[in-house]
Amino acid sequence: MKKIAVILSGCGSRDGSEIHEATLSLLAIDMNGLKYQCFAPNKNQTEVVNHFTQAQDSEKRNMLVEGARIARGNIKPINEINAADFDALWIPGGLGAAKNLCSYFYEGANMKVDSDVESAIKAFNKAGKPIVALCIAPVIVAKVLGANVTSGKDTGTASNIEAMGGKNTVCNYDEIAYDTEKRVITAPCYMLDASISQIWMGIKKAADKLVELI
Amino acid sequence: MKKIAVILSGCGSRDGSEIHEATLSLLAIDMNGLKYQCFAPNKNQTEVVNHFTQAQDSEKRNMLVEGARIARGNIKPINEINAADFDALWIPGGLGAAKNLCSYFYEGANMKVDSDVESAIKAFNKAGKPIVALCIAPVIVAKVLGANVTSGKDTGTASNIEAMGGKNTVCNYDEIAYDTEKRVITAPCYMLDASISQIWMGIKKAADKLVELI
Repeated sequence: MKKIAVILSGCGSRDGSEIHEATLSLLAIDMNGLKYQCFAPNKNQTEVVNHFTQAQDSEKRNMLVEGARIARGNIKPINEINAADFDALWIPGGLGAAKNLCSYFYEGANMKVDSDVESAIKAFNKAGKPIVALCIAPVIVAKVLGANVTSGKDTGTASNIEAMGGKNTVCNYDEIAYDTEKRVITAPCYMLDASISQIWMGIKKAADKLVELI
Repeated sequence: MKKIAVILSGCGSRDGSEIHEATLSLLAIDMNGLKYQCFAPNKNQTEVVNHFTQAQDSEKRNMLVEGARIARGNIKPINEINAADFDALWIPGGLGAAKNLCSYFYEGANMKVDSDVESAIKAFNKAGKPIVALCIAPVIVAKVLGANVTSGKDTGTASNIEAMGGKNTVCNYDEIAYDTEKRVITAPCYMLDASISQIWMGIKKAADKLVELI
Protein backbone atom coordinates (compact mmCIF):
# COMPACT_ATOMS: atom_id res chain seq x y z
CA MET A 1 0.00 0.00 0.00
CA LYS A 2 1.36 3.41 -1.00
CA LYS A 3 2.16 5.79 1.87
CA ILE A 4 1.94 9.56 2.02
CA ALA A 5 3.79 11.73 4.56
CA VAL A 6 1.66 14.71 5.62
CA ILE A 7 3.32 17.73 7.28
CA LEU A 8 1.17 19.64 9.78
CA SER A 9 2.04 22.96 11.44
CA GLY A 10 -0.45 23.16 14.33
CA CYS A 11 -4.26 23.10 14.37
CA GLY A 12 -6.17 26.15 13.15
CA SER A 13 -6.29 28.42 10.11
CA ARG A 14 -4.76 31.50 11.78
CA ASP A 15 -1.72 29.93 13.48
CA GLY A 16 -1.47 26.29 12.35
CA SER A 17 -2.68 23.88 9.70
CA GLU A 18 -6.03 24.85 8.23
CA ILE A 19 -8.32 22.21 9.73
CA HIS A 20 -10.62 21.69 6.72
CA GLU A 21 -7.70 21.45 4.29
CA ALA A 22 -5.79 19.03 6.54
CA THR A 23 -8.83 16.85 7.28
CA LEU A 24 -9.96 16.72 3.65
CA SER A 25 -6.37 15.86 2.65
CA LEU A 26 -6.51 12.82 4.93
CA LEU A 27 -9.95 11.93 3.53
CA ALA A 28 -8.77 12.20 -0.09
CA ILE A 29 -5.66 10.11 0.65
CA ASP A 30 -7.65 7.42 2.48
CA MET A 31 -10.45 7.33 -0.13
CA ASN A 32 -7.83 6.57 -2.77
CA GLY A 33 -6.61 3.52 -0.87
CA LEU A 34 -3.39 5.20 0.23
CA LYS A 35 -2.05 5.28 3.79
CA TYR A 36 -0.96 8.46 5.53
CA GLN A 37 1.38 9.31 8.37
CA CYS A 38 1.27 12.81 9.85
CA PHE A 39 4.39 14.68 10.95
CA ALA A 40 5.02 18.11 12.46
CA PRO A 41 7.99 20.03 13.81
CA ASN A 42 8.40 19.48 17.55
CA LYS A 43 8.64 23.26 18.03
CA ASN A 44 6.40 26.01 19.32
CA GLN A 45 4.19 27.85 16.84
CA THR A 46 5.41 31.40 16.23
CA GLU A 47 1.98 32.66 17.36
CA VAL A 48 -1.22 31.56 19.05
CA VAL A 49 -4.29 33.35 17.70
CA ASN A 50 -7.70 33.33 19.40
CA HIS A 51 -9.84 32.18 16.46
CA PHE A 52 -13.01 33.67 17.97
CA THR A 53 -11.73 37.21 18.57
CA GLN A 54 -8.85 37.01 16.02
CA ALA A 55 -6.59 38.55 18.72
CA GLN A 56 -3.08 37.33 19.50
CA ASP A 57 -2.84 35.18 22.60
CA SER A 58 0.18 35.11 24.91
CA GLU A 59 0.18 31.34 25.45
CA LYS A 60 2.55 28.93 23.71
CA ARG A 61 1.44 25.95 21.67
CA ASN A 62 3.60 23.27 20.06
CA MET A 63 3.05 22.26 16.41
CA LEU A 64 3.44 18.54 17.08
CA VAL A 65 1.09 18.58 20.09
CA GLU A 66 -1.56 20.65 18.28
CA GLY A 67 -1.15 18.77 14.99
CA ALA A 68 -1.91 15.62 17.01
CA ARG A 69 -5.49 16.94 17.34
CA ILE A 70 -5.94 16.70 13.56
CA ALA A 71 -4.04 13.39 13.41
CA ARG A 72 -6.00 11.86 16.32
CA GLY A 73 -2.71 11.26 18.14
CA ASN A 74 -1.02 9.42 15.27
CA ILE A 75 1.75 11.91 14.48
CA LYS A 76 5.56 11.91 14.60
CA PRO A 77 8.24 14.60 14.86
CA ILE A 78 9.18 15.83 11.40
CA ASN A 79 12.84 14.90 11.78
CA GLU A 80 11.70 11.25 11.70
CA ILE A 81 10.50 11.57 8.08
CA ASN A 82 12.48 9.27 5.83
CA ALA A 83 11.61 9.86 2.18
CA ALA A 84 12.56 6.24 1.39
CA ASP A 85 9.58 5.05 3.48
CA PHE A 86 6.98 7.12 1.58
CA ASP A 87 5.68 7.57 -1.94
CA ALA A 88 4.81 11.26 -1.71
CA LEU A 89 4.84 14.32 0.55
CA TRP A 90 1.68 16.38 1.26
CA ILE A 91 1.59 19.82 2.92
CA PRO A 92 -1.83 21.35 3.76
CA GLY A 93 -2.14 25.12 4.10
CA GLY A 94 -3.30 27.44 6.83
CA LEU A 95 -1.30 30.37 8.18
CA GLY A 96 0.79 27.87 10.15
CA ALA A 97 2.42 26.90 6.84
CA ALA A 98 3.40 30.57 6.33
CA LYS A 99 4.22 31.38 9.98
CA ASN A 100 5.74 28.13 11.31
CA LEU A 101 7.02 26.02 8.41
CA CYS A 102 8.57 29.10 6.84
CA SER A 103 8.63 32.84 7.53
CA TYR A 104 6.61 33.91 4.47
CA PHE A 105 3.95 35.63 6.58
CA TYR A 106 6.61 37.89 8.17
CA GLU A 107 9.22 38.29 5.43
CA GLY A 108 7.52 37.66 2.07
CA ALA A 109 9.97 36.74 -0.68
CA ASN A 110 12.87 37.07 1.78
CA MET A 111 11.50 34.18 3.81
CA LYS A 112 13.45 31.29 5.31
CA VAL A 113 12.17 27.71 5.38
CA ASP A 114 12.33 25.54 8.52
CA SER A 115 15.41 23.35 8.02
CA ASP A 116 13.58 20.04 8.60
CA VAL A 117 10.82 21.03 6.17
CA GLU A 118 13.42 22.04 3.59
CA SER A 119 15.29 18.74 4.04
CA ALA A 120 12.08 16.75 3.60
CA ILE A 121 11.11 18.60 0.41
CA LYS A 122 14.59 18.15 -1.06
CA ALA A 123 14.72 14.46 -0.15
CA PHE A 124 11.35 13.67 -1.77
CA ASN A 125 12.27 15.72 -4.83
CA LYS A 126 15.67 14.05 -5.18
CA ALA A 127 13.97 10.64 -5.04
CA GLY A 128 11.58 11.72 -7.83
CA LYS A 129 8.61 11.49 -5.44
CA PRO A 130 5.65 13.86 -5.90
CA ILE A 131 4.90 16.72 -3.52
CA VAL A 132 1.40 18.11 -2.97
CA ALA A 133 0.98 21.56 -1.38
CA LEU A 134 -2.28 23.40 -0.68
CA CYS A 135 -3.32 27.03 -0.15
CA ILE A 136 -0.31 29.10 0.98
CA ALA A 137 2.01 26.06 1.39
CA PRO A 138 3.05 26.21 -2.31
CA VAL A 139 5.27 29.21 -1.48
CA ILE A 140 7.52 26.80 0.44
CA VAL A 141 7.88 24.46 -2.53
CA ALA A 142 8.41 27.42 -4.87
CA LYS A 143 11.24 28.67 -2.63
CA VAL A 144 12.97 25.30 -2.11
CA LEU A 145 12.54 23.83 -5.62
CA GLY A 146 11.76 26.84 -7.84
CA ALA A 147 8.60 24.97 -8.80
CA ASN A 148 5.62 26.09 -10.87
CA VAL A 149 2.77 26.34 -8.36
CA THR A 150 -0.58 28.05 -7.86
CA SER A 151 -1.56 30.65 -5.30
CA GLY A 152 -5.10 30.83 -6.63
CA LYS A 153 -5.78 34.34 -7.93
CA ASP A 154 -3.68 36.22 -5.38
CA THR A 155 -1.41 38.56 -7.34
CA GLY A 156 0.75 39.54 -4.34
CA THR A 157 1.63 35.94 -3.56
CA ALA A 158 2.11 35.26 -7.27
CA SER A 159 4.76 37.97 -7.58
CA ASN A 160 6.52 36.77 -4.43
CA ILE A 161 6.59 33.25 -5.88
CA GLU A 162 8.22 34.61 -9.06
CA ALA A 163 10.67 36.68 -6.97
CA MET A 164 11.74 33.49 -5.17
CA GLY A 165 12.52 31.76 -8.48
CA GLY A 166 9.24 29.87 -8.82
CA LYS A 167 6.49 30.18 -11.40
CA ASN A 168 2.84 30.90 -10.64
CA THR A 169 -0.26 29.55 -12.38
CA VAL A 170 -3.65 31.15 -11.73
CA CYS A 171 -6.18 28.51 -10.61
CA ASN A 172 -9.79 28.44 -9.52
CA TYR A 173 -10.92 26.29 -6.56
CA ASP A 174 -11.57 23.27 -8.76
CA GLU A 175 -8.25 23.43 -10.59
CA ILE A 176 -4.72 22.31 -9.77
CA ALA A 177 -1.31 23.38 -11.02
CA TYR A 178 1.13 20.61 -11.93
CA ASP A 179 4.86 21.03 -12.44
CA THR A 180 5.69 18.09 -14.73
CA GLU A 181 9.44 18.24 -14.24
CA LYS A 182 9.44 18.66 -10.45
CA ARG A 183 6.31 16.54 -9.92
CA VAL A 184 4.71 19.22 -7.73
CA ILE A 185 0.91 19.35 -7.45
CA THR A 186 -0.71 22.45 -5.91
CA ALA A 187 -4.30 23.55 -5.28
CA PRO A 188 -5.46 26.99 -4.05
CA CYS A 189 -8.12 25.93 -1.49
CA TYR A 190 -8.76 28.82 0.94
CA MET A 191 -6.42 31.19 -0.92
CA LEU A 192 -9.75 31.81 -2.66
CA ASP A 193 -12.97 32.86 -0.96
CA ALA A 194 -14.28 29.31 -1.35
CA SER A 195 -16.70 27.07 0.53
CA ILE A 196 -15.67 23.77 2.12
CA SER A 197 -17.24 21.76 -0.73
CA GLN A 198 -15.39 23.92 -3.26
CA ILE A 199 -11.99 23.32 -1.62
CA TRP A 200 -12.87 19.61 -1.53
CA MET A 201 -13.06 19.66 -5.35
CA GLY A 202 -9.49 20.96 -5.55
CA ILE A 203 -8.17 18.55 -2.94
CA LYS A 204 -9.84 15.56 -4.65
CA LYS A 205 -8.32 16.66 -7.96
CA ALA A 206 -4.87 16.91 -6.32
CA ALA A 207 -5.25 13.40 -4.88
CA ASP A 208 -6.43 12.00 -8.22
CA LYS A 209 -3.33 13.48 -9.92
CA LEU A 210 -1.14 12.04 -7.17
CA VAL A 211 -2.60 8.57 -7.69
CA GLU A 212 -1.66 8.79 -11.39
CA LEU A 213 1.95 9.52 -10.42
CA ILE A 214 2.72 6.90 -7.77
CA MET B 1 -31.66 28.15 1.56
CA LYS B 2 -32.06 25.69 4.45
CA LYS B 3 -29.85 26.33 7.49
CA ILE B 4 -28.33 23.88 9.95
CA ALA B 5 -27.15 24.81 13.47
CA VAL B 6 -24.02 22.85 14.41
CA ILE B 7 -23.00 22.55 18.08
CA LEU B 8 -19.26 22.25 18.73
CA SER B 9 -17.60 21.48 22.08
CA GLY B 10 -13.96 22.45 21.50
CA CYS B 11 -11.42 21.23 18.94
CA GLY B 12 -9.93 17.76 19.30
CA SER B 13 -11.09 14.19 19.81
CA ARG B 14 -9.95 13.81 23.44
CA ASP B 15 -11.38 17.02 24.93
CA GLY B 16 -13.53 18.72 22.29
CA SER B 17 -15.32 18.11 19.01
CA GLU B 18 -13.74 15.34 16.98
CA ILE B 19 -12.11 17.29 14.15
CA HIS B 20 -12.76 14.84 11.31
CA GLU B 21 -16.40 14.35 12.31
CA ALA B 22 -16.99 18.09 12.66
CA THR B 23 -15.21 19.00 9.41
CA LEU B 24 -16.92 16.25 7.40
CA SER B 25 -20.26 17.35 8.89
CA LEU B 26 -19.69 20.84 7.47
CA LEU B 27 -18.64 19.30 4.14
CA ALA B 28 -21.74 17.10 3.95
CA ILE B 29 -24.01 20.02 4.84
CA ASP B 30 -22.40 22.35 2.28
CA MET B 31 -22.30 19.69 -0.47
CA ASN B 32 -26.05 19.30 -0.08
CA GLY B 33 -26.65 22.97 -0.75
CA LEU B 34 -27.49 23.73 2.89
CA LYS B 35 -25.96 26.53 4.98
CA TYR B 36 -24.45 25.99 8.41
CA GLN B 37 -23.84 28.14 11.47
CA CYS B 38 -21.60 26.82 14.21
CA PHE B 39 -22.30 27.39 17.91
CA ALA B 40 -20.54 26.37 21.12
CA PRO B 41 -20.99 27.03 24.83
CA ASN B 42 -18.94 30.05 25.94
CA LYS B 43 -17.50 27.99 28.79
CA ASN B 44 -14.22 26.30 29.57
CA GLN B 45 -13.78 22.68 28.55
CA THR B 46 -13.77 20.33 31.56
CA GLU B 47 -10.32 19.10 30.49
CA VAL B 48 -7.45 19.88 28.16
CA VAL B 49 -5.69 16.76 26.89
CA ASN B 50 -2.32 16.76 25.15
CA HIS B 51 -3.24 14.80 22.01
CA PHE B 52 0.39 13.78 21.39
CA THR B 53 1.14 12.29 24.84
CA GLN B 54 -2.54 11.68 25.79
CA ALA B 55 -1.72 13.25 29.20
CA GLN B 56 -3.96 15.77 30.95
CA ASP B 57 -2.78 19.35 30.64
CA SER B 58 -3.28 21.98 33.35
CA GLU B 59 -4.19 24.82 30.98
CA LYS B 60 -7.74 26.05 30.39
CA ARG B 61 -9.39 26.23 26.98
CA ASN B 62 -12.81 27.62 26.09
CA MET B 63 -15.21 25.63 23.88
CA LEU B 64 -16.28 28.66 21.84
CA VAL B 65 -12.72 29.87 21.27
CA GLU B 66 -11.44 26.40 20.32
CA GLY B 67 -14.53 25.55 18.27
CA ALA B 68 -13.76 28.71 16.29
CA ARG B 69 -10.73 26.86 14.91
CA ILE B 70 -13.01 24.31 13.23
CA ALA B 71 -15.51 27.02 12.22
CA ARG B 72 -12.78 29.30 10.81
CA GLY B 73 -13.96 32.05 13.18
CA ASN B 74 -17.61 31.89 12.14
CA ILE B 75 -19.13 30.67 15.41
CA LYS B 76 -21.59 32.05 17.97
CA PRO B 77 -22.29 31.39 21.66
CA ILE B 78 -24.80 28.55 22.01
CA ASN B 79 -27.30 30.67 23.93
CA GLU B 80 -27.84 32.62 20.69
CA ILE B 81 -29.34 29.56 18.95
CA ASN B 82 -32.92 30.23 17.98
CA ALA B 83 -34.58 27.09 16.62
CA ALA B 84 -36.96 29.24 14.56
CA ASP B 85 -33.98 30.41 12.45
CA PHE B 86 -32.83 26.91 11.52
CA ASP B 87 -34.15 23.78 9.82
CA ALA B 88 -32.17 21.23 11.81
CA LEU B 89 -29.63 20.76 14.62
CA TRP B 90 -26.38 18.82 14.16
CA ILE B 91 -24.03 17.65 16.94
CA PRO B 92 -20.69 16.05 15.96
CA GLY B 93 -18.97 13.71 18.42
CA GLY B 94 -15.58 13.64 20.08
CA LEU B 95 -15.03 13.31 23.82
CA GLY B 96 -15.96 16.98 24.16
CA ALA B 97 -19.56 15.93 23.52
CA ALA B 98 -19.32 13.52 26.49
CA LYS B 99 -17.17 15.73 28.75
CA ASN B 100 -18.39 19.27 28.00
CA LEU B 101 -21.89 19.13 26.49
CA CYS B 102 -22.93 16.59 29.12
CA SER B 103 -21.22 14.63 31.90
CA TYR B 104 -21.55 11.17 30.30
CA PHE B 105 -17.79 10.57 30.37
CA TYR B 106 -17.73 11.05 34.14
CA GLU B 107 -21.16 9.83 35.28
CA GLY B 108 -22.48 7.40 32.67
CA ALA B 109 -26.25 6.99 32.77
CA ASN B 110 -26.43 9.43 35.72
CA MET B 111 -25.15 12.22 33.50
CA LYS B 112 -26.43 15.78 33.34
CA VAL B 113 -26.75 17.74 30.10
CA ASP B 114 -25.51 21.33 29.74
CA SER B 115 -28.64 23.47 30.14
CA ASP B 116 -28.17 25.41 26.88
CA VAL B 117 -27.61 22.19 24.94
CA GLU B 118 -30.71 20.66 26.52
CA SER B 119 -32.78 23.77 25.68
CA ALA B 120 -31.62 23.69 22.07
CA ILE B 121 -32.46 20.00 21.64
CA LYS B 122 -35.89 20.48 23.20
CA ALA B 123 -36.64 23.56 21.06
CA PHE B 124 -35.74 21.83 17.78
CA ASN B 125 -37.69 18.73 18.77
CA LYS B 126 -40.75 20.76 19.81
CA ALA B 127 -40.67 22.51 16.41
CA GLY B 128 -40.57 19.10 14.66
CA LYS B 129 -37.10 19.85 13.29
CA PRO B 130 -34.64 16.98 12.79
CA ILE B 131 -31.57 16.46 14.98
CA VAL B 132 -28.40 14.74 13.77
CA ALA B 133 -25.89 13.41 16.32
CA LEU B 134 -22.65 11.56 15.62
CA CYS B 135 -20.37 9.18 17.54
CA ILE B 136 -20.91 9.61 21.32
CA ALA B 137 -23.22 12.67 20.95
CA PRO B 138 -26.31 10.42 20.55
CA VAL B 139 -26.22 9.78 24.33
CA ILE B 140 -27.26 13.41 24.81
CA VAL B 141 -30.27 13.07 22.51
CA ALA B 142 -31.17 9.73 24.11
CA LYS B 143 -31.14 11.39 27.54
CA VAL B 144 -33.08 14.53 26.58
CA LEU B 145 -35.63 12.98 24.19
CA GLY B 146 -35.56 9.25 24.97
CA ALA B 147 -34.74 8.75 21.31
CA ASN B 148 -33.74 5.62 19.43
CA VAL B 149 -30.10 6.17 18.50
CA THR B 150 -26.96 4.25 17.60
CA SER B 151 -23.71 3.94 19.53
CA GLY B 152 -22.19 1.72 16.86
CA LYS B 153 -21.40 -1.68 18.35
CA ASP B 154 -20.47 -0.48 21.84
CA THR B 155 -22.48 -2.57 24.30
CA GLY B 156 -21.61 -0.47 27.36
CA THR B 157 -22.88 2.73 25.77
CA ALA B 158 -25.90 0.82 24.43
CA SER B 159 -26.94 -0.25 27.92
CA ASN B 160 -26.43 3.25 29.30
CA ILE B 161 -28.64 4.60 26.51
CA GLU B 162 -31.38 2.13 27.48
CA ALA B 163 -30.91 3.02 31.19
CA MET B 164 -31.52 6.68 30.32
CA GLY B 165 -34.80 5.85 28.59
CA GLY B 166 -33.50 5.75 25.02
CA LYS B 167 -33.27 2.87 22.59
CA ASN B 168 -30.10 1.67 20.90
CA THR B 169 -29.67 0.32 17.38
CA VAL B 170 -26.43 -1.43 16.40
CA CYS B 171 -24.90 0.20 13.29
CA ASN B 172 -21.80 -0.25 11.20
CA TYR B 173 -19.81 2.77 9.95
CA ASP B 174 -21.86 3.04 6.76
CA GLU B 175 -25.23 2.83 8.49
CA ILE B 176 -27.42 5.31 10.36
CA ALA B 177 -30.16 4.93 12.93
CA TYR B 178 -33.33 6.96 12.40
CA ASP B 179 -36.01 7.61 15.01
CA THR B 180 -39.07 8.28 12.83
CA GLU B 181 -41.20 9.76 15.59
CA LYS B 182 -38.55 12.05 17.08
CA ARG B 183 -36.82 12.74 13.75
CA VAL B 184 -33.39 11.92 15.19
CA ILE B 185 -30.63 10.73 12.84
CA THR B 186 -27.49 9.19 14.36
CA ALA B 187 -24.30 7.67 12.91
CA PRO B 188 -21.54 5.85 14.86
CA CYS B 189 -18.42 7.36 13.19
CA TYR B 190 -15.40 6.89 15.49
CA MET B 191 -17.40 4.88 18.06
CA LEU B 192 -16.13 2.18 15.70
CA ASP B 193 -12.50 1.53 14.81
CA ALA B 194 -13.10 3.15 11.42
CA SER B 195 -11.00 5.07 8.89
CA ILE B 196 -11.75 8.64 7.87
CA SER B 197 -13.27 7.53 4.56
CA GLN B 198 -15.46 5.03 6.44
CA ILE B 199 -16.83 7.68 8.81
CA TRP B 200 -17.43 9.87 5.75
CA MET B 201 -19.85 7.20 4.44
CA GLY B 202 -21.93 7.42 7.62
CA ILE B 203 -21.87 11.22 7.70
CA LYS B 204 -22.91 11.45 4.04
CA LYS B 205 -25.75 9.02 4.73
CA ALA B 206 -26.88 11.13 7.71
CA ALA B 207 -26.85 14.26 5.54
CA ASP B 208 -28.76 12.52 2.75
CA LYS B 209 -31.43 11.47 5.26
CA LEU B 210 -31.57 15.00 6.63
CA VAL B 211 -32.13 16.45 3.15
CA GLU B 212 -35.14 14.12 2.73
CA LEU B 213 -36.65 15.52 5.93
CA ILE B 214 -36.28 19.28 5.56
